[in-house]
Amino acid sequence: MIEIIEGIYKGRSEGKILVSINGVVFGIITDAESFSEFNEGDKILVYTKLIVSQEDMTIYGFDSKVKKETFEKLIKVSKLGPKTAIKILSSTTVDFLSNAIATGDVEKLSSIPGIGRKTAERMITELKDEFEVVEVNEEMLEAIEALVSLGYSKTQARNAVSKVLKESPNISNVSKIIKEALKILAKI
Amino acid sequence: MIEIIEGIYKGRSEGKILVSINGVVFGIITDAESFSEFNEGDKILVYTKLIVSQEDMTIYGFDSKVKKETFEKLIKVSKLGPKTAIKILSSTTVDFLSNAIATGDVEKLSSIPGIGRKTAERMITELKDEFEVVEVNEEMLEAIEALVSLGYSKTQARNAVSKVLKESPNISNVSKIIKEALKILAKI
Amino acid sequence: MIEIIEGIYKGRSEGKILVSINGVVFGIITDAESFSEFNEGDKILVYTKLIVSQEDMTIYGFDSKVKKETFEKLIKVSKLGPKTAIKILSSTTVDFLSNAIATGDVEKLSSIPGIGRKTAERMITELKDEFEVVEVNEEMLEAIEALVSLGYSKTQARNAVSKVLKESPNISNVSKIIKEALKILAKI
Amino acid sequence: MIEIIEGIYKGRSEGKILVSINGVVFGIITDAESFSEFNEGDKILVYTKLIVSQEDMTIYGFDSKVKKETFEKLIKVSKLGPKTAIKILSSTTVDFLSNAIATGDVEKLSSIPGIGRKTAERMITELKDEFEVVEVNEEMLEAIEALVSLGYSKTQARNAVSKVLKESPNISNVSKIIKEALKILAKI
Repeated sequence: MIEIIEGIYKGRSEGKILVSINGVVFGIITDAESFSEFNEGDKILVYTKLIVSQEDMTIYGFDSKVKKETFEKLIKVSKLGPKTAIKILSSTTVDFLSNAIATGDVEKLSSIPGIGRKTAERMITELKDEFEVVEVNEEMLEAIEALVSLGYSKTQARNAVSKVLKESPNISNVSKIIKEALKILAKI
Repeated sequence: MIEIIEGIYKGRSEGKILVSINGVVFGIITDAESFSEFNEGDKILVYTKLIVSQEDMTIYGFDSKVKKETFEKLIKVSKLGPKTAIKILSSTTVDFLSNAIATGDVEKLSSIPGIGRKTAERMITELKDEFEVVEVNEEMLEAIEALVSLGYSKTQARNAVSKVLKESPNISNVSKIIKEALKILAKI
Repeated sequence: MIEIIEGIYKGRSEGKILVSINGVVFGIITDAESFSEFNEGDKILVYTKLIVSQEDMTIYGFDSKVKKETFEKLIKVSKLGPKTAIKILSSTTVDFLSNAIATGDVEKLSSIPGIGRKTAERMITELKDEFEVVEVNEEMLEAIEALVSLGYSKTQARNAVSKVLKESPNISNVSKIIKEALKILAKI
Repeated sequence: MIEIIEGIYKGRSEGKILVSINGVVFGIITDAESFSEFNEGDKILVYTKLIVSQEDMTIYGFDSKVKKETFEKLIKVSKLGPKTAIKILSSTTVDFLSNAIATGDVEKLSSIPGIGRKTAERMITELKDEFEVVEVNEEMLEAIEALVSLGYSKTQARNAVSKVLKESPNISNVSKIIKEALKILAKI
């Protein structure tokens, strides 16, 4: 029913981002990475999903339409509720998830925090046709992971690495990518 | 509870139109034809019906009050839910439906995608008194269908044919109506 | 949860008044008399009661706080739902109802359309302590009823008679009250 | 879902504060002390908790985030619903409550109106880890209680005493605190 909320970012509290619209501040449950770079007062656009049950009304929200659609697919899987779906999306990227499901890779899927073997098998059985293999730049992933291990947030790391690849598309050596990305990150 | 929503049209996604009001974008389920001509940024007025169940809150919306009222009558029929009602309204006109129900015409009714014989009989039994025979201009219907088969949307076709009949009320020959309508459509 | 709605009056449809606020038009179920004098475009303040059930969310609304509170008391009576409460409030005044309940007058109460003897008895048993005897000006009531029988709405009649009694508090002869009220009504 | 509501204070009615936002007046259930000093027309910021059940939607609200969080903890205790939680928060301070729970003090806890021995024991068992001992200025509490017994509201008393302690941090004699506070209160 509520597809998007556009308002003013008011901070984060207990897994929720606070978004103010016309005097009402909504608490929207999101994954660890969405909006992690936002500062109080920023304008924010959230792709939302309202979930109504007998005992509660909760809004989940994400920083991209594709992440929201991934969330909507995950919660269709039997015995996989919104909380687990948020945990999964907080621990991996949509691309990684899509490829693991599309290729039916139980090992890869159950390597993600929040996904045991049984859940992985159910996800593959019930969602296989809803995901496609996405071309993933392994070097990019490796560079991002390296930067994260140096303490940068995943969004910072990904933005920096994307910028490097944009400016020099032919660069394919992981350590070179990391070096260039660190220069960018130093300027933030 | 929510009878009308007036906002800015933000596009269509999976059977829903997106309507923005004061920072909140509502996803409103509608029939295939309602608002099919709208462009992103247009002002839009939607006749809405909020349906609350234990597990969800959904808004259905239409481009005319009479279509909304028809939807409200359809979902009163036992074993006929909102999804089927939307399918029916996407496959026929309110006039055609009214006449088929008012005249108790099971053949005509079950010719509409989404309506089997049993559903047709239930619709007639439960709704007969709620619909009246509407004078339908057969030539008009034929002209519209011809234009649709040429690739125009039903709304484009109906608007053009209505314009022709308004400008020359005495015209009754179907091919003449089509010819005049095509002139109008060429200018769009 | 929603105590008052202030917006623009958009007309009446099937027992509902339509009130527009910031692009959303609410359908509020009200009694026959509330807002009967309103014209489309008027500013309107409605005392509202949101009722949530497993299958629906409905807003009821009234033109005075005391009428809303009376409605809230009525729906607490066992086997007396919102629809019957609206029917009762559409058929009588709050004062008449208060006096009938406070004095335990089953005859008077069951003379109101929508209230049978059993309902009257239950109302008295369950609500006796919640209503007080209200001083009612019998002549005023008679004059109002006479004007209503001449075709004026109850609100018009009551406003005119109240005006007469305000301007000449000592007037107590019913036909004189009616005569003066008719002069006022003639000017509307 | 709704974390904060900012609007215009419209008064108090039956345990609810009325807050107006863009034409809608929300009725928010609060404790006796929250906003007790507010005047109609004041700007107000309420920390809110929306509770949805099969039969109702209710908003509870408080004048501080910590009081709202305390309310959210209390209603997690089995057999302790929102009404009792409001009664508790209307009868004591968050600090007093925190200390009683954190120290497992059944006597102290069951001295609070609305908390019997069994409820006190359950609160301690289920919430012990969620509360910490808060340094409480006994003289301050005594002075506040004395002023309340003289007829001042708890908020007035607490504000005055806090002001005294701020201006003269070394003052520790209860009667001196009361004397200074009365001078401040006299000026209101």
